[in-house]
Amino acid sequence: MSNNYEQLKERVCKANKLLPRNNLSLFSWGSVSAIDREQGVMVIKPTGASFDKLTAKVMSVVDLSGKLIEGSPPSIDTPAHLELYRSFPLVGGIAHTHSKWATIMAQIGLDIPVLGAVHAEYFYGDIPCTKQLTNEQIHKDYSRETGLQIVRALYEKKLTPERVGACLVASHGPFTWGATELVAIQNAIVLEEVAMAAWHTMQVPFKVGRIPQTMLDEHFFTRNSKQTPMGEVPEVV
Amino acid sequence: MSNNYEQLKERVCKANKLLPRNNLSLFSWGSVSAIDREQGVMVIKPTGASFDKLTAKVMSVVDLSGKLIEGSPPSIDTPAHLELYRSFPLVGGIAHTHSKWATIMAQIGLDIPVLGAVHAEYFYGDIPCTKQLTNEQIHKDYSRETGLQIVRALYEKKLTPERVGACLVASHGPFTWGATELVAIQNAIVLEEVAMAAWHTMQVPFKVGRIPQTMLDEHFFTRNSKQTPMGEVPEVV
Amino acid sequence: MSNNYEQLKERVCKANKLLPRNNLSLFSWGSVSAIDREQGVMVIKPTGASFDKLTAKVMSVVDLSGKLIEGSPPSIDTPAHLELYRSFPLVGGIAHTHSKWATIMAQIGLDIPVLGAVHAEYFYGDIPCTKQLTNEQIHKDYSRETGLQIVRALYEKKLTPERVGACLVASHGPFTWGATELVAIQNAIVLEEVAMAAWHTMQVPFKVGRIPQTMLDEHFFTRNSKQTPMGEVPEVV
Amino acid sequence: MSNNYEQLKERVCKANKLLPRNNLSLFSWGSVSAIDREQGVMVIKPTGASFDKLTAKVMSVVDLSGKLIEGSPPSIDTPAHLELYRSFPLVGGIAHTHSKWATIMAQIGLDIPVLGAVHAEYFYGDIPCTKQLTNEQIHKDYSRETGLQIVRALYEKKLTPERVGACLVASHGPFTWGATELVAIQNAIVLEEVAMAAWHTMQVPFKVGRIPQTMLDEHFFTRNSKQTPMGEVPEVV
Repeated sequence: MSNNYEQLKERVCKANKLLPRNNLSLFSWGSVSAIDREQGVMVIKPTGASFDKLTAKVMSVVDLSGKLIEGSPPSIDTPAHLELYRSFPLVGGIAHTHSKWATIMAQIGLDIPVLGAVHAEYFYGDIPCTKQLTNEQIHKDYSRETGLQIVRALYEKKLTPERVGACLVASHGPFTWGATELVAIQNAIVLEEVAMAAWHTMQVPFKVGRIPQTMLDEHFFTRNSKQTPMGEVPEVV
Repeated sequence: MSNNYEQLKERVCKANKLLPRNNLSLFSWGSVSAIDREQGVMVIKPTGASFDKLTAKVMSVVDLSGKLIEGSPPSIDTPAHLELYRSFPLVGGIAHTHSKWATIMAQIGLDIPVLGAVHAEYFYGDIPCTKQLTNEQIHKDYSRETGLQIVRALYEKKLTPERVGACLVASHGPFTWGATELVAIQNAIVLEEVAMAAWHTMQVPFKVGRIPQTMLDEHFFTRNSKQTPMGEVPEVV
Repeated sequence: MSNNYEQLKERVCKANKLLPRNNLSLFSWGSVSAIDREQGVMVIKPTGASFDKLTAKVMSVVDLSGKLIEGSPPSIDTPAHLELYRSFPLVGGIAHTHSKWATIMAQIGLDIPVLGAVHAEYFYGDIPCTKQLTNEQIHKDYSRETGLQIVRALYEKKLTPERVGACLVASHGPFTWGATELVAIQNAIVLEEVAMAAWHTMQVPFKVGRIPQTMLDEHFFTRNSKQTPMGEVPEVV
Repeated sequence: MSNNYEQLKERVCKANKLLPRNNLSLFSWGSVSAIDREQGVMVIKPTGASFDKLTAKVMSVVDLSGKLIEGSPPSIDTPAHLELYRSFPLVGGIAHTHSKWATIMAQIGLDIPVLGAVHAEYFYGDIPCTKQLTNEQIHKDYSRETGLQIVRALYEKKLTPERVGACLVASHGPFTWGATELVAIQNAIVLEEVAMAAWHTMQVPFKVGRIPQTMLDEHFFTRNSKQTPMGEVPEVV
C-alpha cells in the first residue's frame, strides 16, 4: 500500500527544496505540500526539517484529518494546508514561504492592488491580506485558524481561489496554491516580484494606480484559459 | 529561401537568453526581436516560450504585417514590436523586459528625469512613460496600441528615438531599442540602473535635481557621435 | 595544556568564516567568540584579521580577564564579549557583525518591534537598541562599556538574554549570542531578515502593527522549549 | 625605458578589473589609476575600454600634464585624476566608479554624515558632495573642472584628503583615493556600504543621528595610525 505514496513523496520533497533555491525561505521556514484526492492523503514537509537535508523517505504522509500515515511527524502548518484543500477543491499543491517582500506586505497588512501586467497575468484581482487572528483563534488551533482566515479573506473579497492563487496572512507571510505543488511555488515566485514592485510603487506619489479592469482581463485571459485558470503548466524548474 | 533567416534566428535566440542572465526577466516574460529590413522580416521569440528552453529552430519569423513565415507562433508582443520598427526607421532591434526597477517606474507612471551621468551618456533626455491605454485601445488591439502609445509618448515629448532608446509603458514595463538587438538589451540594462538610482533619489528631499543641459550634452556627445547616436558598439556579452 | 584549546580554536575559526559567507560582514569587520567556562577561557578572532586568511592557529585564547594565553593579540571587541559572558551565564557563543539591515536599524537607534512570525520564533520580544555611549564611556574603555550598555539595554527593557539573543548597539551594529557560537551566528542571520522586514514595514503607514502576545507565545514556544530557550540546535551550515 | 612601466600597467589593469568584480561598475564605466611620482607618470584605463577585455598592454601611460607616453588613448577622466594627484601629494591611486548607492547620494547632492562605526573607521568626517558644476566649468574642461571641484569641496569643508579618501561629484558619482590603487578601491567598497546605510537611516525619523566626535576619534585612530592615515594595508583581493 505504502508504495503508492513514493512518487508523491519524491515530488513534494523536490518541491520543498525549490524554496531556498528560489530565495523564498531560509533554514526550515515554510512548507510545501501536495494532495492525492483519490487516495485521500496529503504529503508535506516534516516538522522542523531543514530544506537542505530533506529526503523523500522522511516526508510526512497524512490523511485528510491530519493523522500521520507514514514518515516523520508533519509540519505544524499541516492543519492550515488541510483547511485550504478542503475549501478549494481544485487545488492540488500549496506552498507556505517566508519570502522577503510578501512578508513585508503581510506585516503591513494591506492587500496588494493590481498595479501591473505581471500581477494581472498570474492573479485575477488584488492579493488579499487576512485580518489579524484574535486571541481566541490563536489559542484554539493556531494553524487551522490560519487556514480558515485565508478562506474567509478570499470569500469576503469575492475572490476565486482558482484565479487568485495567493493570500497574505497578517503579521506572518504568504500562502500560495495551484493545480500542483509546482504551480504553487511558481505563484510564490511571482508574488515576490509583484510584492516588491507594489511596495516601491506605493512609496512614491503616483500617477497611474490600479490598472483598469479591461487590462486585467486582457492579461489574465491571454495567459489563462477561461475554463481552467489554475496555471497547469508551471515554468518553475 | 528559408536559409536566409538562420543567422538572424540564431542571433535573436541568443539575445533573448540574455534577458534572464542579466536579471531583466523571469520565466517567459518579455521578448527580444530584430528586423531584416532588406528581406522584410522580423524574428522574435515565440509566444509563451521560456528563455531557458529556447532554440533558434523555434524562433518566429514574421513579415512586416505580422504574418508567420516560419517557426512557432510569435510572441503576443509582435504587433507592438512591428509598430516601433515602422515608426523608427533606424531601429534594428527591440527588447521588452519586466526588469524590476523599470517596472516600478512604469507602475508609478512618471518619466525618469535625467538625474545623473550614466543616464546622460545613454539617453539624451528624460525616459518617457506613456499614458495609460484607454478601454477602447485595450479592446481594439492591445499590443499594437501599446506600440503606438510608445510612439506617441516620444512624439509628444519631442524625443528622438535614435537618442532615447527606451520608453516605459504605464502599468506595464519597459521597451528599449537600438541599432541592433544587443544595443536594445544594453539599453535595458542601463535603464535598470538608471531607474533604480532615480527611484531612490526621488525619495529623499534633494538638493541637486535634473542635470543642466550642458552636462547632458557633454556626456551624451562624448559617448555618441552626433551622426549615428544609436549605440552601434554594444558592450553586452 | 595548550592542547585543550585546539578544538575550540578550530570551531571558532570556522564560525568566523561564516560571517562573510552569509553576507554579515566584509573584510575583517566583526568577531565571533566562544567560551569554555570550565577551562576559564574565551577564543576570539585576532585583532584586524581578515576572515579570508584566518587559520585556527592564530586564533586568540584569552582568560576571562582578557589576558592573552596563546595566539595573536585578540580583537579589540574582546572586552565587550567578556562583559556579555560575565552577565549572561548561559551564553556560550557571541557574534558581532556589520550586517547591512541590523546596522541601519542601529544607526536609526530604535528597538525592532515584533512585527512578524519569524521574529517571534527566534526572539521573545523586541530586539533592543542601546542608548548612545557618553563621551565618558567612550574615553574610559570603549569596548567594555559597549558590552555593559548591551547588558543595561536588556535589563531596562526587562528582556531575558536567554530568550532575546540579539541587541543593536546605537550608531554601531548588532551583537548576537546563544548557547554556542553557531546559535549566535544563526541569530545574526535571522536578525538581518527581521531588520530588513521591519525597516520596510515601518516605511508604509500600516494596519497591523506589533503582533499580539498570544501569537508571540505561540510562535516562540512552539520552536523553543520553555526550559532551554537558547536555540541549541542551530540550522546554520 | 618603457620597461619601467610594465609592472605599474599590470597592477592598474588588475585593479580596474576589481570594479565589476565588486559590483562597483558595469561595462566600461569608471576608471582606476595609479601614479609613479618618481618617474612622473600616471597609468589609467584607456578611454571606452570595457573592464572585461582589458589587458596590461593597452593601459594608458601619461605624463603629469596628460600627454600620452604609451598605450591606448587614456580615459576621458584623465584630467580629473591628474588634478587630484596634483592637489593631494600623498595619494598614490584613484578610483572613479558608478556604484549604485554612492551614485544615488551624489544625485541627491548631500554630504554623507558620519552615522556609524564603519564610516568612522575608514573616513574621518563627512564624505563631501561637490557643488554642481556651472555651465562655464562644463564648457571649459569638464573633466579637469570635476577634479578641481573635488579639491574645493574638501578644502571648503576643511577635510584632509589623507583622512577622507572619498568625495561624491554632484549628479555624477564617487571618486575615491588612497596610498595605492587598492586602497582607493577598498574605499570605494566601504563607501558603497556606508552610502547604502546612510540612505536608509535618513528615510526613518531617527533618534541617534551623527555620532559624537569621541566615537569618531576612537574608531578612526584605532584603525589608522595618527601618522599615516592612508590605509596602507588594503584588505581588497
